[in-house]
Amino acid sequence: MKIYKGHLLFTPRRTAFEVIENGYVAVKDGRIVGVSSRLSDLANSNAEVVDLGDRLLIPAMCDMHVHAPQYRNQGMCMDLELLTWLNAYTFPEEEKFADMAYAERIYRRFVRDLWRNGTMRAAVFATIHADSTRLLMHLFEAAGMGAMVGKVDMDRNCPEALCETVDEAVAANELLAAAFNDPEALVRPIITPRFIPSCTPAMLQACGRLAREYGLPVQSHLSENRAEIALVHELEPQSESYGDAYNRYGLFGQTPTLMAHCVYSSDEEIELMRRNGVMAVHCPTSNLNIASGMSPVRTLLDCGVRVSLGSDISGGHDLSMFRVMVYALQVSKMLSVTQGVQPQLTLPEVFWCATKSAGSFFGQVGSFEPGYEFDALVIDDSELNFDHYTLLERLERFIYLGDDRHIVHRYCRGQEIAEPPLRF
Amino acid sequence: MKIYKGHLLFTPRRTAFEVIENGYVAVKDGRIVGVSSRLSDLANSNAEVVDLGDRLLIPAMCDMHVHAPQYRNQGMCMDLELLTWLNAYTFPEEEKFADMAYAERIYRRFVRDLWRNGTMRAAVFATIHADSTRLLMHLFEAAGMGAMVGKVDMDRNCPEALCETVDEAVAANELLAAAFNDPEALVRPIITPRFIPSCTPAMLQACGRLAREYGLPVQSHLSENRAEIALVHELEPQSESYGDAYNRYGLFGQTPTLMAHCVYSSDEEIELMRRNGVMAVHCPTSNLNIASGMSPVRTLLDCGVRVSLGSDISGGHDLSMFRVMVYALQVSKMLSVTQGVQPQLTLPEVFWCATKSAGSFFGQVGSFEPGYEFDALVIDDSELNFDHYTLLERLERFIYLGDDRHIVHRYCRGQEIAEPPLRF
Repeated sequence: MKIYKGHLLFTPRRTAFEVIENGYVAVKDGRIVGVSSRLSDLANSNAEVVDLGDRLLIPAMCDMHVHAPQYRNQGMCMDLELLTWLNAYTFPEEEKFADMAYAERIYRRFVRDLWRNGTMRAAVFATIHADSTRLLMHLFEAAGMGAMVGKVDMDRNCPEALCETVDEAVAANELLAAAFNDPEALVRPIITPRFIPSCTPAMLQACGRLAREYGLPVQSHLSENRAEIALVHELEPQSESYGDAYNRYGLFGQTPTLMAHCVYSSDEEIELMRRNGVMAVHCPTSNLNIASGMSPVRTLLDCGVRVSLGSDISGGHDLSMFRVMVYALQVSKMLSVTQGVQPQLTLPEVFWCATKSAGSFFGQVGSFEPGYEFDALVIDDSELNFDHYTLLERLERFIYLGDDRHIVHRYCRGQEIAEPPLRF
Repeated sequence: MKIYKGHLLFTPRRTAFEVIENGYVAVKDGRIVGVSSRLSDLANSNAEVVDLGDRLLIPAMCDMHVHAPQYRNQGMCMDLELLTWLNAYTFPEEEKFADMAYAERIYRRFVRDLWRNGTMRAAVFATIHADSTRLLMHLFEAAGMGAMVGKVDMDRNCPEALCETVDEAVAANELLAAAFNDPEALVRPIITPRFIPSCTPAMLQACGRLAREYGLPVQSHLSENRAEIALVHELEPQSESYGDAYNRYGLFGQTPTLMAHCVYSSDEEIELMRRNGVMAVHCPTSNLNIASGMSPVRTLLDCGVRVSLGSDISGGHDLSMFRVMVYALQVSKMLSVTQGVQPQLTLPEVFWCATKSAGSFFGQVGSFEPGYEFDALVIDDSELNFDHYTLLERLERFIYLGDDRHIVHRYCRGQEIAEPPLRF
């Protein structure tokens, strides 16, 4: 057993931080066995106490929507909207991931940068290429970081080099499912139809079957952009909503499901998400950068939908989930100004979205409570803490102003994670 | 004469970057005497050539609206709107600047952080306290950085400790004007009535008279928040607009004038700004954080209003003008989605706002053209430039992803500026 001593800040509930000054977290076999403000509540004779001094100890970040092969395009190419953006910038880049050497170079940087930013769990889109997807999964395994990684499935409205047959997609997914078949493992496959415009009904049906047969989770995109929604309505005219289209193919909560964006979800779609336990992934930077819109997160939460956050590189430009939290607050404020949506999101709410709420997709992850896996960051904010700030102020200032320089230790499932190398 | 060799990127016009790969800038007595892609166009026998290698050389940043005494509150206290936010968080902090030791500690950090972020010119609000305002001006002088610094004037709707009489305000401003009376100096006073709600008609009149008599520029706030505008309408019922109220007191372009925010400026107010040459300072981070709204920058530009950018610490949370540019683009995209405003702002436009357009307030600053003062940043983006990016892509990625670690040299008026010390 190891016991970590530091200032604990986390969100057991959505509405408020739990703050334990000079608190203790006891960890055994990767899981938290106790949390207290007194060592005597936790210690036994075998416990090693790690004193983190005046540092903050917070749950590690979960990035629930991110495209690893778009890493090269991060911070550029943001002058178009979704459908034209995909064709002009994204698909040409994704084609390169047939080349294993290129894929390794980019994917190593991607994993290293997730690490830098304190993201210890991620739900990741790869490309249609099974070999480089497998490589990415091995890189996460080697790093010791948690990830659900999806080989992307797509067979229409895309360049020939990114088109596959349904049989090819099924075979590749089955190989990955067999290779990564431990449901307890840190790195797992996730069924990933790109989105309805990229997938024929046969492909969507096959994806639903794969998810069910292999007990695998699902991720895709939902109601991100108005032109996209109109296209889905054309392609799936029998469906009552975009979400209902996924639902008809068994891709909307039949197994655990992530749906990125939900900017324009109708009341019916929101109700279907709630009923099916579909988790919405709010990606505010992306929604601003490629001019999608402002997702009504307050409404999603009020309706009982599970909500998490995503960086959505490269529609989003920033891998830091702390910055994504800031943007989530800001978008909520703009919705209050432009549409009167009240109340605005609060800091504990967006922190909870990126930790405990998101973490529930991986099991018991994202909080400091007994039974939870110990995923944590140690924040040395001494540079920012030059005056008499409270612990909550220190956390808020780190979220708004801090960066990777302030994250001095990272833990995933109880293990300290070292910087993943860019080369063997 | 010194000649700097590097990849030059700047915006002589609003609509496009000028890019000179391996270009040369010749500097003499602080000013640029020539820019060329060939050394032979510029060199004479006395010229020392400084080879910056594969680095980017860009104009330094101008932050045209920032509150130095709110530095301690940066990155926190953003759960209220303007008028309540001022009373709850801002005024209590500003009161502390009667204490010179506190002021020095905070102001030194503030100047150091402007430096870190590559901001070599700023238009700064201090507090009502003349002594600590003068201290801040001396810190800018010692650093070698350019600033217009305003002792804030206010005499109503504020705590007693921040209230002064008109006579006190006039006397303090006159002392500062006498102490810093060189119109060519890097550090100058600027007349700074806080905003109409904080200033009686007598105070506004006095401010207008000070500006005229001493030939000093003016800065204030304009049409930031709906409740504020309603209050101004109550306080100045005879004025046709918030801007017209300033105009009646000689504070709206009678001398060079900065007006921060302009979120809700009417057509008439915009026309008055254009006619009087008033420069709008767009502060998108602040407008999002304290839920003010989205400023119609495209409209301001189309109408011929001068536009610059401001960090507005601590309504804004980020001192980096590069991040402020990103937010300016994002706000513009949200206006296009929610209100159909087209075309969206472009990267060269927001860069121009933070350099050449803003710099015009200081003289010939913010571009690499003959006659311009040499204010520049050297960007080492090698960490971000891991693939074959174009120079424009490199600049865009630095703007979106870079930070102070990538700024390796800073120049103001031809001098390289060293890191300002936090202590004597």
